Amino acid sequence: MQTKTIAQLIHDLHTHAVSARHLVEQALSRIDDTAGEGTRTFMTIWRDRARDLADHIDRHELWRDERLPLCGIPLSVKDVFDVAGEITRAGSIAREDQPVATADAEAVSRLRNAGAILIGRTTMSEFAFSGIGLNHHFGTPRNPWDRLTGRIPGGSSSGSAVSVADGMCTGSLASDTGGSVRAPAALCGVTGFKPTASRVLLDGVFPRSYSLDTVGPIAGTVTCCAYINAVLSARRLAPSAASVEAVEGLRLGVIEGDPVENLAPEVAQAFSAALSRLSQKGARLSSFAMPEIEKIRRVTSSGGISPPEAFAIHRDLIATRPDLIDPIFLARLRKGGEVRAADYIDALRQRSAIMADVHARTQSFDAILMPTCPVVAPQISDVQHPEEFEAMSTLILQNCGFANFLDRPALSVPIHQPAAAPVGMMLIGQHGHDDELLRLGVSVEAALSGHRL
Amino acid sequence: MQTKTIAQLIHDLHTHAVSARHLVEQALSRIDDTAGEGTRTFMTIWRDRARDLADHIDRHELWRDERLPLCGIPLSVKDVFDVAGEITRAGSIAREDQPVATADAEAVSRLRNAGAILIGRTTMSEFAFSGIGLNHHFGTPRNPWDRLTGRIPGGSSSGSAVSVADGMCTGSLASDTGGSVRAPAALCGVTGFKPTASRVLLDGVFPRSYSLDTVGPIAGTVTCCAYINAVLSARRLAPSAASVEAVEGLRLGVIEGDPVENLAPEVAQAFSAALSRLSQKGARLSSFAMPEIEKIRRVTSSGGISPPEAFAIHRDLIATRPDLIDPIFLARLRKGGEVRAADYIDALRQRSAIMADVHARTQSFDAILMPTCPVVAPQISDVQHPEEFEAMSTLILQNCGFANFLDRPALSVPIHQPAAAPVGMMLIGQHGHDDELLRLGVSVEAALSGHRL
Repeated sequence: MQTKTIAQLIHDLHTHAVSARHLVEQALSRIDDTAGEGTRTFMTIWRDRARDLADHIDRHELWRDERLPLCGIPLSVKDVFDVAGEITRAGSIAREDQPVATADAEAVSRLRNAGAILIGRTTMSEFAFSGIGLNHHFGTPRNPWDRLTGRIPGGSSSGSAVSVADGMCTGSLASDTGGSVRAPAALCGVTGFKPTASRVLLDGVFPRSYSLDTVGPIAGTVTCCAYINAVLSARRLAPSAASVEAVEGLRLGVIEGDPVENLAPEVAQAFSAALSRLSQKGARLSSFAMPEIEKIRRVTSSGGISPPEAFAIHRDLIATRPDLIDPIFLARLRKGGEVRAADYIDALRQRSAIMADVHARTQSFDAILMPTCPVVAPQISDVQHPEEFEAMSTLILQNCGFANFLDRPALSVPIHQPAAAPVGMMLIGQHGHDDELLRLGVSVEAALSGHRL
Repeated sequence: MQTKTIAQLIHDLHTHAVSARHLVEQALSRIDDTAGEGTRTFMTIWRDRARDLADHIDRHELWRDERLPLCGIPLSVKDVFDVAGEITRAGSIAREDQPVATADAEAVSRLRNAGAILIGRTTMSEFAFSGIGLNHHFGTPRNPWDRLTGRIPGGSSSGSAVSVADGMCTGSLASDTGGSVRAPAALCGVTGFKPTASRVLLDGVFPRSYSLDTVGPIAGTVTCCAYINAVLSARRLAPSAASVEAVEGLRLGVIEGDPVENLAPEVAQAFSAALSRLSQKGARLSSFAMPEIEKIRRVTSSGGISPPEAFAIHRDLIATRPDLIDPIFLARLRKGGEVRAADYIDALRQRSAIMADVHARTQSFDAILMPTCPVVAPQISDVQHPEEFEAMSTLILQNCGFANFLDRPALSVPIHQPAAAPVGMMLIGQHGHDDELLRLGVSVEAALSGHRL
């Protein structure tokens, strides 16, 4: 991981301690490291364009312009976003014959307008369909934590997380429908943020679910995520997201039951240590039962919301070239096509009712905590069989999905010891209170960092 | 119809030319007129409560309180709204065993809080399922225009329109999913307003379609509708809705094709005369083609949006007591239950795309005009057979439905000669520009009134 934060890099640019061109070359050299994962992480690398922009920025010292809050910062972009002149493949070979995008996705456009240097297009799970991050067509980047063993990066934003964890860029533009930002961030040891859905426009994003899709950053720290998110959501960076408040007095809820049970030993240990640390520092932790978890499971397992939406998105492809879709996903897609409209309508109604109930139950908390994933990254060789693959994907996304269903902002923050298996802690905020969650995340991260380092 | 407007009644209350108690007695005497339609129009009459409130208002001269903009005005309420302590039957005998409402619907509550005197609960088409207004269980009020022949009132808000047209109240609280406010208003010769869906809360309204339901008033004039709508939508009455601007320079679009073709002679004549009058007064009329009409038809005819929603709403009843549902509607409901989720999802997506296209095509117009219904009220005896019934209901709602699909505010304004068959002209505004449409409606009404009287 690049050890410097966006705030530090901006400072270094201003003091001429570093140039934008240097940051680009540094990123490209990490991509080109033959011992690294560059070729499996990136589907396209925009070398010349990045270098030209960096030189232009350096020549005119553009970082002085306050309207360019990400000026000179190298970022990667998940393959789900339109970039003018390129095909948006969404990790699938089925889209080879699609026309190139005529315009940048809104999120891409906002990053460019903020002065960010886009380095390349990162790989992902085919059509964002799993939390594992394997891609047989465009490569599966190995998890930087334990490259020798060959572990999964997590998905669907596999390339985004690896590109950040491996220093190939400072942050990545990703998307999250059921954990696609947070799960790979947690498994690769970096930070991810999923906003309230309405906060970031989805124009030019290849869809996974019309109801649950969100766009969010993966980066090294919560503050870095806040910088990128401020640009994506066209908001001013909340002042205190750059400073740090104490965790003392924060009211943090820990849901009892499944989300914090049956954890891998590494996850259980890291999560419990993080809670102790927060408690020592004066945060007020309390366990609470949330029966709505079971209701959410029931809605999701009986037809659900995203399966019929996925069928609607892919129906033409299913009809014409089913052979181009991974058989595991094809079967799942076809099941989504059998869902009746009335059941889907009921699921959406139940979602609204559950959101209201959870709001009433949790409004006294500043955030809800749980491990981002109940496991650490398994070996790639252990998820080759369809059953293993499906079971592991479900497990990895199990906790993340609640935040999408409830349409709440959520952060995944690393809580493991250095060099240990990466573990993330998820902080879930209140619907629409994204800036408050990011501020709280900065405090939690600072409180835990003494613990980690 | 009560010949006085809400503004006039408020003035009369202030000058002691009339008392609230007198207005209530006047309304009750019209309801109790044995030659009239009172028993078929009202399902419940709140005599004592209305009288008590009127006396209370008179005793304390409450109309002086500016926070009570409808103080002393007698209104009726469609059977679709919750009223605390009563069963909301929605015109159906299937809901006899339902618990009574524990609270007033939000719209009812706002009217009460504005000082309105609620007179009673009006009949409607069973579950708001047709534009005809027949109800075999609770009575079909005959259209006040031609009681001798026995003509339909239009639906689904049949009792609301008749209660206003017959002077049993000054206005009525109704709902509109595909024309249920505007069609009976047009066929009975009164005025109806359907807002943009998000403008009025649907809490405590028995649903017809989650996507298309709206709540709006039926009253004697556009200004009366604006008074009631301001209370329902918790907005200040737009100042000029009470004054009148000229129609000169208004840009009015008339859609070519189906909406203005195959009209009954009375409708064609009245519509054409109204257009001439508006043109003479300086409004700028232009015909334009709108190919989206055909697209809307295609979306609506292939599964559509409201049929699967109606199935979801009534699925328990269909499963347990199908015998309590009118066989015509039962067949339609079951068809809605067969729609697949992916088709419904596509229909909603197409709706959004069509809304955007129509916006681009029509943004240069202040309003779009068409006849509210292409026919005048037929004889009750002519819609007894299921085929006649279905065909006539479709015809009556044909034009109204566009405004619901496009989620635009729409007014129906009477344009017939006195004593002639009632004909309404529909004015459709831009999504969210409800107050602008009401202002425009006041001007159009004034420009046409010289013509009518």
